[in-house]
Amino acid sequence: MTLQIGLIGCGGIGQEHARRLHFTLNGARVVALNDLNRDAAAAFADRAQIPATVHASAEALIHDPAVQAVVVASWGPAHEEQVLACIAAGKPVFCEKPLAVTAEGARRIVEAEMRHGKQRVQVGFMRRYDAGYRALKATLDAGTVGDALLVHAAHRNPAVPESYVGDMNITDTFIHEIDVFRWLLNDEYVSVQVIEGRRTRHAHAGLHDPITVLLETRQGIRIDTEVFVACRFGYDIQCHVVGETGVASLPEPLTVPLRSAARQGSGLLMDWKLRFIESYDVELQDWIHATARGEVNGPDAWDGFVASLTAEACIAARQTRQITPIALPERPAFYAR
Amino acid sequence: MTLQIGLIGCGGIGQEHARRLHFTLNGARVVALNDLNRDAAAAFADRAQIPATVHASAEALIHDPAVQAVVVASWGPAHEEQVLACIAAGKPVFCEKPLAVTAEGARRIVEAEMRHGKQRVQVGFMRRYDAGYRALKATLDAGTVGDALLVHAAHRNPAVPESYVGDMNITDTFIHEIDVFRWLLNDEYVSVQVIEGRRTRHAHAGLHDPITVLLETRQGIRIDTEVFVACRFGYDIQCHVVGETGVASLPEPLTVPLRSAARQGSGLLMDWKLRFIESYDVELQDWIHATARGEVNGPDAWDGFVASLTAEACIAARQTRQITPIALPERPAFYAR
Amino acid sequence: MTLQIGLIGCGGIGQEHARRLHFTLNGARVVALNDLNRDAAAAFADRAQIPATVHASAEALIHDPAVQAVVVASWGPAHEEQVLACIAAGKPVFCEKPLAVTAEGARRIVEAEMRHGKQRVQVGFMRRYDAGYRALKATLDAGTVGDALLVHAAHRNPAVPESYVGDMNITDTFIHEIDVFRWLLNDEYVSVQVIEGRRTRHAHAGLHDPITVLLETRQGIRIDTEVFVACRFGYDIQCHVVGETGVASLPEPLTVPLRSAARQGSGLLMDWKLRFIESYDVELQDWIHATARGEVNGPDAWDGFVASLTAEACIAARQTRQITPIALPERPAFYAR
Amino acid sequence: MTLQIGLIGCGGIGQEHARRLHFTLNGARVVALNDLNRDAAAAFADRAQIPATVHASAEALIHDPAVQAVVVASWGPAHEEQVLACIAAGKPVFCEKPLAVTAEGARRIVEAEMRHGKQRVQVGFMRRYDAGYRALKATLDAGTVGDALLVHAAHRNPAVPESYVGDMNITDTFIHEIDVFRWLLNDEYVSVQVIEGRRTRHAHAGLHDPITVLLETRQGIRIDTEVFVACRFGYDIQCHVVGETGVASLPEPLTVPLRSAARQGSGLLMDWKLRFIESYDVELQDWIHATARGEVNGPDAWDGFVASLTAEACIAARQTRQITPIALPERPAFYAR
Repeated sequence: MTLQIGLIGCGGIGQEHARRLHFTLNGARVVALNDLNRDAAAAFADRAQIPATVHASAEALIHDPAVQAVVVASWGPAHEEQVLACIAAGKPVFCEKPLAVTAEGARRIVEAEMRHGKQRVQVGFMRRYDAGYRALKATLDAGTVGDALLVHAAHRNPAVPESYVGDMNITDTFIHEIDVFRWLLNDEYVSVQVIEGRRTRHAHAGLHDPITVLLETRQGIRIDTEVFVACRFGYDIQCHVVGETGVASLPEPLTVPLRSAARQGSGLLMDWKLRFIESYDVELQDWIHATARGEVNGPDAWDGFVASLTAEACIAARQTRQITPIALPERPAFYAR
Repeated sequence: MTLQIGLIGCGGIGQEHARRLHFTLNGARVVALNDLNRDAAAAFADRAQIPATVHASAEALIHDPAVQAVVVASWGPAHEEQVLACIAAGKPVFCEKPLAVTAEGARRIVEAEMRHGKQRVQVGFMRRYDAGYRALKATLDAGTVGDALLVHAAHRNPAVPESYVGDMNITDTFIHEIDVFRWLLNDEYVSVQVIEGRRTRHAHAGLHDPITVLLETRQGIRIDTEVFVACRFGYDIQCHVVGETGVASLPEPLTVPLRSAARQGSGLLMDWKLRFIESYDVELQDWIHATARGEVNGPDAWDGFVASLTAEACIAARQTRQITPIALPERPAFYAR
Repeated sequence: MTLQIGLIGCGGIGQEHARRLHFTLNGARVVALNDLNRDAAAAFADRAQIPATVHASAEALIHDPAVQAVVVASWGPAHEEQVLACIAAGKPVFCEKPLAVTAEGARRIVEAEMRHGKQRVQVGFMRRYDAGYRALKATLDAGTVGDALLVHAAHRNPAVPESYVGDMNITDTFIHEIDVFRWLLNDEYVSVQVIEGRRTRHAHAGLHDPITVLLETRQGIRIDTEVFVACRFGYDIQCHVVGETGVASLPEPLTVPLRSAARQGSGLLMDWKLRFIESYDVELQDWIHATARGEVNGPDAWDGFVASLTAEACIAARQTRQITPIALPERPAFYAR
Repeated sequence: MTLQIGLIGCGGIGQEHARRLHFTLNGARVVALNDLNRDAAAAFADRAQIPATVHASAEALIHDPAVQAVVVASWGPAHEEQVLACIAAGKPVFCEKPLAVTAEGARRIVEAEMRHGKQRVQVGFMRRYDAGYRALKATLDAGTVGDALLVHAAHRNPAVPESYVGDMNITDTFIHEIDVFRWLLNDEYVSVQVIEGRRTRHAHAGLHDPITVLLETRQGIRIDTEVFVACRFGYDIQCHVVGETGVASLPEPLTVPLRSAARQGSGLLMDWKLRFIESYDVELQDWIHATARGEVNGPDAWDGFVASLTAEACIAARQTRQITPIALPERPAFYAR
């Protein structure tokens, strides 16, 4: 059985996903494409040798009877409307982050899905599918270091473009930590504090960099994350979980140990695209198989909503410099795990 | 386009390959199965939900018109005959190691394939598809440590069964190093010496363990490999290439760094099956795509022959305790890369 | 020329220092001893074969004309009076931490020394003499990672006795970080925040463990330190300095890399006494040579005062749960470096 | 009690030892100096502020009644005569390696010392005093990895001068491994094989580099050592001991872990002088204290003889390309440990 997929948004990540679904993964093929720039979509289909219908609108793609499931890889502001249309059409949808550009928008998706009566929506938080985070979670769940007490984390990027400004280190960068720590710790956040310390001279004018974000969970776990997007030296994701009897850490990505030029060690990635590239395969393969079984298995609409709500609390905390409560509604039974 | 595969041998590795081809990889499905125990093959097909024809003989499977390519996962002594039958039938075949149980048998396959006029045979040396060895080869090929001069390697296994005796540490264990170093270094062997040093008390009576194998290549590169199959502490594959300007090493497999119980470090695998499990996916996916293009891309019949010939030289060197030449014929133009 | 030393306090650290000064280091000998328990001091002198005069009082020892310099290793509450007596007698004094049990007491020492007109006092903050911290400081001072922006640190101890309660994780434990970060960063603190998160079940009733201490410096550097004294797994000191172009970390202590029992890595110390034991030799050797030249070279009375003042601010911050300013007077010219 | 030392040979290592003995270590002072260049010796004494008698000859220094013990740091060819003179004079002597330039010369020292009737001679094999080797030996002696079976070692140097030719990679470089492995393993050598593989283009014409030396011990332990003196990348000493239940390795020297410039790891030493510099302090301090007790504690004349004999066997093995027996006489009871 092969899942027939329609993909909306043929930019960088959209093209990668289309090739992945069609030529790498098992059990799916891409039958329909759409992009704001219809010619670009057609040219891509041709270049990639994917014999898909190119639709004039997202709406048309969603309602194409050949399309059994939808992947949304358009730009963020379009996500909410496209996901709502998939829910209305009763079609499973995988939506790249963000689920919506506001928590309010994400909440509308949650409510629509609940009214619709069946889970259809998965959000593209791929870190949950990374082999390293999975191994770390397995270690924690096995009790190897006892109950978690503290998390020390870092999200470092060598550089960002001039267009990356303001709160993007929260909404585009730290958003990944927001999702992955809840999942890693089986916990929810109750407060956040944001510290703007000494700025690096290598950040451009529109950005305070680095910042430190302190999260507190219901169980009292304290998470400190350094977010440093102009760190120059590499794309470097750190996560150390301190438990009652030990410390478990996120594995480093596979690299060749080298002794050369008066130094021993190994290379660091300079491009964030490479760090989690394998997790996209795992994530979409899992989605294909779950969708074929009629299930939603990964981060769902509620997770997308929680991420948006938490990001908004982080931004408020940054402005006020205060410890800011995160008022999360109870998870509806509909989204029970 | 989906490659239709017949698989011979439904034991452990055969079942894993069948599931992998059918449910994990892209572009293939399993349409025919055969096993010496026909009922076992049928039961497996049923259990795994693979709707394949179960053939009474390997011969029948190979000649099934629905079968476009064959995977041989039967026991070693059957490989030669089955591969020869595939060549005769003009069907691409992926044969688990060994290609044949003697160098003479492997040579017959090489000769048959050359007479047939087109490459059809790939041998299952999966280490060439391991992400770690690939990264190491890329580092060497890029000249990062200059020309290779020495290789220090180890193949360690925590324990072996009583049935593992005599020269099996060469034919079943070191055989992987024999294949992978030629490929890693783009070189061929010219001599071998085998040293039996102090025995561990943890090896059973039928086995001298550990041994050290010293290989010399045409370029003069010296490779020392410790083969230690009752090392108790873990399945541990080491490979350090010393070049003119540095040392590049095989990456360790991904593991969670831990600080606990007065020790810091990470876990070692105890089961060899897990070490290269991902490389089977990469190897067979690559084989599917190459086969669909009418190519042989991976270790071929010549590579299988060289491995057998070298293993036989190792065994002779062990008996004589002498530095033993390896008289390798020139690679035929037919197998040119 | 041999420096003639009188040592006050013949408990554990006192005995160690006496042997070190007399039998290990260059340029000194112990000529006088004192302890509250005079018999114990005499027995120790005899046992250690140190032919020293055993004085009935600290005062008598300080005024012994044979004593050219004094080491104070008595219990904390006695330090202030003994150091003041040394200053009054014009004798160089090395005082184990704390310089005084209150910031007010330390300030009195500073004032007495300034009135006296010449620096005489060194405080036993031995971490400044640890080879690891020294290498880290050299790396930072060389600009290898650019200007420091953030410090992530941890002070972990496997267990503490029942007598270790209340704020001792600040006054006895974190006090070392207070001193060493100022020195490492060439900076001073301006505020502190203390976070009490989830308690480990392995801490006894009188202790909130772990805690996180956040320090801010004049330059805006943010330092987060996990203080976790019932961590069970080892004595583990971490310090990672994030600069504008890289991260430099405190080296791990020398240990034998091991592969055994399904794990690779190395041992962690379980006893804090071993971690900095070599730094005592370096510290006291440096003190002997500086004292012989008439100088004070290491952490001085002002450093002891700053440490006490900062510790008191930490305790206040813990009680109020607020970001608490640290009102440090300007360093007097007398203590200029 | 202060040991009064006469030092012969005021070159680089001689000056370092003189300062170390006089200004760093406990229990000794330098009272006499001698050098072929008497003016240089006098100038050094003046510069270093060591108030020593400068003797016109080694002989005169040895017979100076103020000299209680002698340190020989002259050039190698002079060692035998000077050590013999110390034995004849009944004075303890610490001789830098080599004890003599031939095994025959070393044997004459052994015989003279036995005739004299009391051990007086220590040889400067400082690796036995290195903290890393000591920790490794303690691990082995504790049985942590079971009985040793194999040793994999490397002695790498970034570059050597044009004057370093021929067999100097054995007599000047590998000689350290010869001494330290016997001590580490509590064993003696029975055979050696030397392999000259592919040469690096970075070695100068008079040198075959790298080479591999294979030693076999009485217990059957096999030791492979890469000796690579133009490796360019660093001074890098490796030693991995494979035992029946695990692998224990020589610790890396302390270095600051760095993440910078797309690489993580730490620096390698480029200067061999720094690698074992601390072991000189430990070695000579131990010698001072043992000498004061009338004992010889470290590598003795017999060890110096064994090292010379083994080096000569290595050179023979290199010429013949054969596995070459090492015919070591039984250790005389005089040298029993």
